[in-house]
Amino acid sequence: MKPADGTAIDTDVAVIGAGPAGLFAAFQLGLQELSVHVVDSLPHAGGQCAELYPDKPIYDVPGWPACSGHELTQGLLRQLEPLHVPLHLGQVVQALQALPSASAEDEAPRWWLQTDGGLDLHARAVVIAAGVGAFLPRPLAVPELQRWEGQQVFYRDPPPAAWLDRRVVVVGGTAAAVQLALRVADSGAASVTLLHRHDRFAIDAELDAQLQSAIGAGWIRLALGQPIGALADDAGQLQALEVATATDERYSLPLEVLLPRLGLHPRLGPLAHWGLALQRKHLVVDATTLQTSQPGLYAVGDITHYPGKRKLIVCAFHEATLAALAITEQLRGAPVPLEYTTTSPRLLARLGRLPTAARP
Amino acid sequence: MKPADGTAIDTDVAVIGAGPAGLFAAFQLGLQELSVHVVDSLPHAGGQCAELYPDKPIYDVPGWPACSGHELTQGLLRQLEPLHVPLHLGQVVQALQALPSASAEDEAPRWWLQTDGGLDLHARAVVIAAGVGAFLPRPLAVPELQRWEGQQVFYRDPPPAAWLDRRVVVVGGTAAAVQLALRVADSGAASVTLLHRHDRFAIDAELDAQLQSAIGAGWIRLALGQPIGALADDAGQLQALEVATATDERYSLPLEVLLPRLGLHPRLGPLAHWGLALQRKHLVVDATTLQTSQPGLYAVGDITHYPGKRKLIVCAFHEATLAALAITEQLRGAPVPLEYTTTSPRLLARLGRLPTAARP
Repeated sequence: MKPADGTAIDTDVAVIGAGPAGLFAAFQLGLQELSVHVVDSLPHAGGQCAELYPDKPIYDVPGWPACSGHELTQGLLRQLEPLHVPLHLGQVVQALQALPSASAEDEAPRWWLQTDGGLDLHARAVVIAAGVGAFLPRPLAVPELQRWEGQQVFYRDPPPAAWLDRRVVVVGGTAAAVQLALRVADSGAASVTLLHRHDRFAIDAELDAQLQSAIGAGWIRLALGQPIGALADDAGQLQALEVATATDERYSLPLEVLLPRLGLHPRLGPLAHWGLALQRKHLVVDATTLQTSQPGLYAVGDITHYPGKRKLIVCAFHEATLAALAITEQLRGAPVPLEYTTTSPRLLARLGRLPTAARP
Repeated sequence: MKPADGTAIDTDVAVIGAGPAGLFAAFQLGLQELSVHVVDSLPHAGGQCAELYPDKPIYDVPGWPACSGHELTQGLLRQLEPLHVPLHLGQVVQALQALPSASAEDEAPRWWLQTDGGLDLHARAVVIAAGVGAFLPRPLAVPELQRWEGQQVFYRDPPPAAWLDRRVVVVGGTAAAVQLALRVADSGAASVTLLHRHDRFAIDAELDAQLQSAIGAGWIRLALGQPIGALADDAGQLQALEVATATDERYSLPLEVLLPRLGLHPRLGPLAHWGLALQRKHLVVDATTLQTSQPGLYAVGDITHYPGKRKLIVCAFHEATLAALAITEQLRGAPVPLEYTTTSPRLLARLGRLPTAARP
């Protein structure tokens, strides 16, 4: 979606978070004929619903006696479809800041949003629907490894050239860790070691058979224990992990490339550095508009706090609706009349349910 | 549901209105293990959704790209099913008042609710989810007819004995009016006249054929015009309607029984007489609890007003949820912890999704 010349995309509204709150906010904003872009750190839509309980039923979505997180997400995406809202997935918002006003007549600031994926957005309003935070790779509890991140330590998959002819250590016991180890072993690494606390992996029988066969063939070596330190060579390169076993024996594991795959966990991390006022990790909003203390900046869903707030999906949908209508009024400078999707020719045309010619 | 001895039913909560807001409030209350009774003036659940647009799609129910009012109602009823909440349909609430406290220790009053169907409820809290009001039969614009209501004028179907060997006039042009005229003609009336503004009826071909055949056979006589007055005999009995035609000719239509069937329309009517503070026909509530100015009396959905209120179904669901949790806290005297239906053994057991033995 980024223009080839590297300039920012201009949009009416940027929505941060593609969980239920963000998707429904995008729907309500698009319905009001605003241009909307959605950004999320996960590679798929759905937020907590998709990441924490994709297959578990939810019983309190109104009118839907039982739906899984996956089904709810699919329903919200289908609902959004006619509005053609771009989703920028797998991108963490790194910076969000007000742009200086171009002239004294500018009433509200524009917002500038940057992601680690190179996306630049200029928006007249921003909806933060960040839930419990961005789902980011869980880091190894060895702080000194940070200095090699992006060079020898990769929390997201690097291009295969990064491990070609190198000694690679993959850390983790999930399917994602095992699959990565198999892929690295199969595509040019000098050696692959899979490091895990114990020899039981959270994987299905088929993947386990592949792993056992790779271990049997000597393509993957298994190491047990937890990383507790890092060793550098004279040139300052990472050369080994220090590992402690369950019985507290220590050994060092030589490597050139480290790929920790300990799963994702939600972190406010980046948001905490955007300079917004947080109270107990929540954004305080006005309950009537969902606007934060900063003009043009709105927040909905689990990330918000206002008197009476309940962290339920049904409340997030309401908040997304109020925020979308408040933003529409802010950008248009006029009240939005009450209209129903059942009867309004304007809204029906917007949803592609009326021929455009019938539009008033 | 009424006990045989005529005493009132005791319940934790009475919900007035079985539209989306009332049904979802009942769900959230039942989920919190409160006993709930729902009352509605219509003979079926669904409120405006069922009465005004049962077959028209709604496009902004979250996660449901398009659903009809009927489908939404069915979904809400299925969701409510495991909680076994009694619905008292076809009953208009005539009176709602606080009962005198039994003792000085009573903190909050109990509420006494009475319907025209003979239902008596004593409730510790009441949720008014009355939407745009009760859907009541539209009255004839001839005020003096009121004095014969229940004697010779019936807005709801009386037992057949009421028209046996009598001269009956049915007023209206809908399918319900035509069906009633056919039924009355077929079950013992001395004569049946169907009075309507013009000779076009809002009925399908099959019913039209039945009507034409009944007119041809002399069972039903058609009269054109609108009632403008009533004539009484010396004994004070209603003996004729004065009717004006489209060309303003006048005639009188003799009758003994009058059955107006002009459709239903929503009226605040009864609610306006419960003694509650109304602002522009809305109940003012606290947005954090949905409580009205009277302790124990809550309101949700289109009938409410609070700062930022939008009359949308998605907002009614949120309000129903906040009201249910606030009522639970009021009745228990303790905060309700945040629990998810996806993971809480207590809520799952309540929904019949866990064996009771597994309940903590």
